Amino acid sequence: MFGLIGGTGAVGVAAGVAGAKATTGDAGHDGSHSQVVGFFGDHQAGIATPAQDRLHFAAFDLSPVASREALVELLTEWTNAALKMTAGQDVGTGAVTGDPSAPPDDTGEALGLAAAKLTVTIGFGASLFTDAHGNDRFGIAGRRPEQLADLPAFAGDALKAEISGGDLCVQACADDPQVAVHAIRNLARIARGTASVRYSQLGFGRTSSTTVSQETPRNMMGFKDGTANLKADDTDSMNQHVWVQDGDGPDWMTGGSYLVSRRIRMLIEPWDSTPLTEQERVIGRTKGAGAPIGRTKEFDPVDLDAQGSDGAPLIDLKSHVRLAHPTTNNGATLLRRGYSFTDGTDDLGRLDAGLFFLAYQRDPRTQFVTIQNSLAGNANDVLNEYIQHVSSGLFACPPGVKAGEYVGQALFT
Amino acid sequence: MFGLIGGTGAVGVAAGVAGAKATTGDAGHDGSHSQVVGFFGDHQAGIATPAQDRLHFAAFDLSPVASREALVELLTEWTNAALKMTAGQDVGTGAVTGDPSAPPDDTGEALGLAAAKLTVTIGFGASLFTDAHGNDRFGIAGRRPEQLADLPAFAGDALKAEISGGDLCVQACADDPQVAVHAIRNLARIARGTASVRYSQLGFGRTSSTTVSQETPRNMMGFKDGTANLKADDTDSMNQHVWVQDGDGPDWMTGGSYLVSRRIRMLIEPWDSTPLTEQERVIGRTKGAGAPIGRTKEFDPVDLDAQGSDGAPLIDLKSHVRLAHPTTNNGATLLRRGYSFTDGTDDLGRLDAGLFFLAYQRDPRTQFVTIQNSLAGNANDVLNEYIQHVSSGLFACPPGVKAGEYVGQALFT
Ligand code: HEM
Ligand code: HEM
Repeated sequence: MFGLIGGTGAVGVAAGVAGAKATTGDAGHDGSHSQVVGFFGDHQAGIATPAQDRLHFAAFDLSPVASREALVELLTEWTNAALKMTAGQDVGTGAVTGDPSAPPDDTGEALGLAAAKLTVTIGFGASLFTDAHGNDRFGIAGRRPEQLADLPAFAGDALKAEISGGDLCVQACADDPQVAVHAIRNLARIARGTASVRYSQLGFGRTSSTTVSQETPRNMMGFKDGTANLKADDTDSMNQHVWVQDGDGPDWMTGGSYLVSRRIRMLIEPWDSTPLTEQERVIGRTKGAGAPIGRTKEFDPVDLDAQGSDGAPLIDLKSHVRLAHPTTNNGATLLRRGYSFTDGTDDLGRLDAGLFFLAYQRDPRTQFVTIQNSLAGNANDVLNEYIQHVSSGLFACPPGVKAGEYVGQALFT
Repeated sequence: MFGLIGGTGAVGVAAGVAGAKATTGDAGHDGSHSQVVGFFGDHQAGIATPAQDRLHFAAFDLSPVASREALVELLTEWTNAALKMTAGQDVGTGAVTGDPSAPPDDTGEALGLAAAKLTVTIGFGASLFTDAHGNDRFGIAGRRPEQLADLPAFAGDALKAEISGGDLCVQACADDPQVAVHAIRNLARIARGTASVRYSQLGFGRTSSTTVSQETPRNMMGFKDGTANLKADDTDSMNQHVWVQDGDGPDWMTGGSYLVSRRIRMLIEPWDSTPLTEQERVIGRTKGAGAPIGRTKEFDPVDLDAQGSDGAPLIDLKSHVRLAHPTTNNGATLLRRGYSFTDGTDDLGRLDAGLFFLAYQRDPRTQFVTIQNSLAGNANDVLNEYIQHVSSGLFACPPGVKAGEYVGQALFT
């Protein structure tokens, strides 16, 4: 591993971050300050900050020989690198300005590009606390939050282990995909010897609006997605449903949030052969305006009791919106922040496309798990005829950091 | 197949295109005329038009039972759909405006999006003329151009058949990836029963500038790519090197161009471990400015005879730029129009990233083949230590069309 800092541990950290901090006032790759999402704060950026257009997500596994010190050094270097990249700067001594007889600290493909609102959000999987053999490799097993309980198996799951789980995750979002790709690549490079990529996922288009001012995008089923999403502008709701509060569990997670990731393949061909009215019945909203069935405007309230002239419920009993709605789930809600993906075609020539579902929450046990239990299985949400969950992840994303700290520091001190 | 037009063949064509044309004056998905690249013209759009930021490329195979009539109908419907989508409109009767008891004509995920400079460029592979068993399935074997000769095997090739070749190709480029993805998906849908996707490739960032005013982007090796590219503004060069001229071969290709596609995997990890000076030696240009070695500015001329103070050539004898340069290749040059890709990670946890190389030319035999022969093999271009060609395609892209025609019409009449 190369790095900004000489030593490992707390001293190196402070020096490293301070060094990077000293340059965050400088111009970015493109010589401008534009498009920078601040790195420091109570919460990690990339959760409540407005969803950017593109995603590169990666899950990492620690090397079997990595020590606690190596893990701390990795988190320190990731913090330093994330701080610089989110400010639109090169990692370390840069792509072209370091010692020319050494491999450059930065791979260079973001040279000249703006920060593009890059955010880097880091999370810890359950296997970081207790590995597959039950070992407490890093001396943190006792600090694993109850909320980081393995997700149960859901009806209809078709999960592939090799694209599920992971000791660590990094969600890199930006308005320019090259900036997001550059971020993951350079973090993977920094990790070499300590951790390696288990799987990664590109998302070409956001499927959620996360603030009231953001327009609702359309997912690969052609429907507006994110209409009834929890909005990050609503601080009370965020505290109630997204941010871990004092007393919820171990202190190191206070101000953090739990991320559930699900790669959900859409069975595009059957969906595309389905009549419009049936598509709308399945979702529970109209395709054009995105209004609840029976209403005309996107933000008209969802009234699950509304009936048509025939006395039948307007929003079908098995529709996605009804089954996902808070009133159906003891008030459970989520901050959805997913992305559409298209990864070529499968062996049968079918488009391998869908939703890389990402959702943040305060307690997955009462939020994602409750909602997904109500959705999962063909007896429930009719949407299941057209989708399949193929990967799953659950990560504890620690709170934000101040200058001189590394992400997750409170877990190791 | 559903479609704009009732019948098949020439009558349906004219009606269909006229119908679509009548609406091209209307507002696009987002209610604006902005960002539309015209569909009609002497040449297909997507070649000389400025390279957009994102790509979705797909190769299709005709069904074993598809007739010549079905192929003509497919090209007709593709033309109609491309005309509408490039104008920022829905396919057919639209995503939400058709008969609600039928599957919508358009899948809807581009509703509300601008045309985003979408271009749709269609090409014909050699297997369309003569299939694997030597059969003249569509009665066009006699009209196969000599230029559409199978590419030879090159030293170092590691081609996978399942992601190479194809009877037809569609290059969809747009500044919004969702628009490019939407285009391929809807064309694939229209093709159902007649042709199916053989493979497809997303490109997240352009790697070439194709006009003098476009800034040169950086590829995944961090280098500016496209500096010495043939520029589409240079009409004389385009006629000499890109557009098929009268008398070059069968008339139906006059005004068209030959597309070579190569998926080139980059061995990112070894590259990232290479010192800056070595990276620059390999390419033959500086990483920062993109200047020829020994010069300072990107557009300083490439002087292959220039020597350093030690008498050694400044641009290394095995550098990519020297071996690819026209003077090394009997004057051969190309219009490069490729895209960077990142498709997750491979079994070994290595980033599956690289360049989806696309290049247009008048005669592949004296252009791509000549240059690639000079590059291929470890004895030649030192870049080969860091790359591997894993797929290959060669397509004859017919000229542009007028209203009432379908792409490739002259081949079938
Ligand atoms: C490919 C799979 C999925 C698709 C295509 C999809 C699509 C949609 C759409 C179109 C809406 C209506 C617009 C909106 O309010 O955002 C919606 C709402 C919602 N979805 Fe999904 N969704 C999927 C998976 C999931 C999953 C896995 C969950 C959580 C377990 C979920 C939770 C929700 C919630 C909570 C709502 C808001 C319901 C309400 O309060 O009205 N969705 N989804
Ligand atoms: C991953 C593989 C490749 C990479 C990373 C790459 C990269 C580059 C770079 C950085 C340049 C210098 C900037 C420029 O003038 O555009 C360049 C030039 C060029 N490349 Fe490539 N290239 C690759 C593959 C190819 C292939 C397969 C061909 C054609 C067979 C090709 C043909 C050319 C040509 C013709 C030039 C311009 C040379 C000159 O006239 O100075 N490249 N390439």
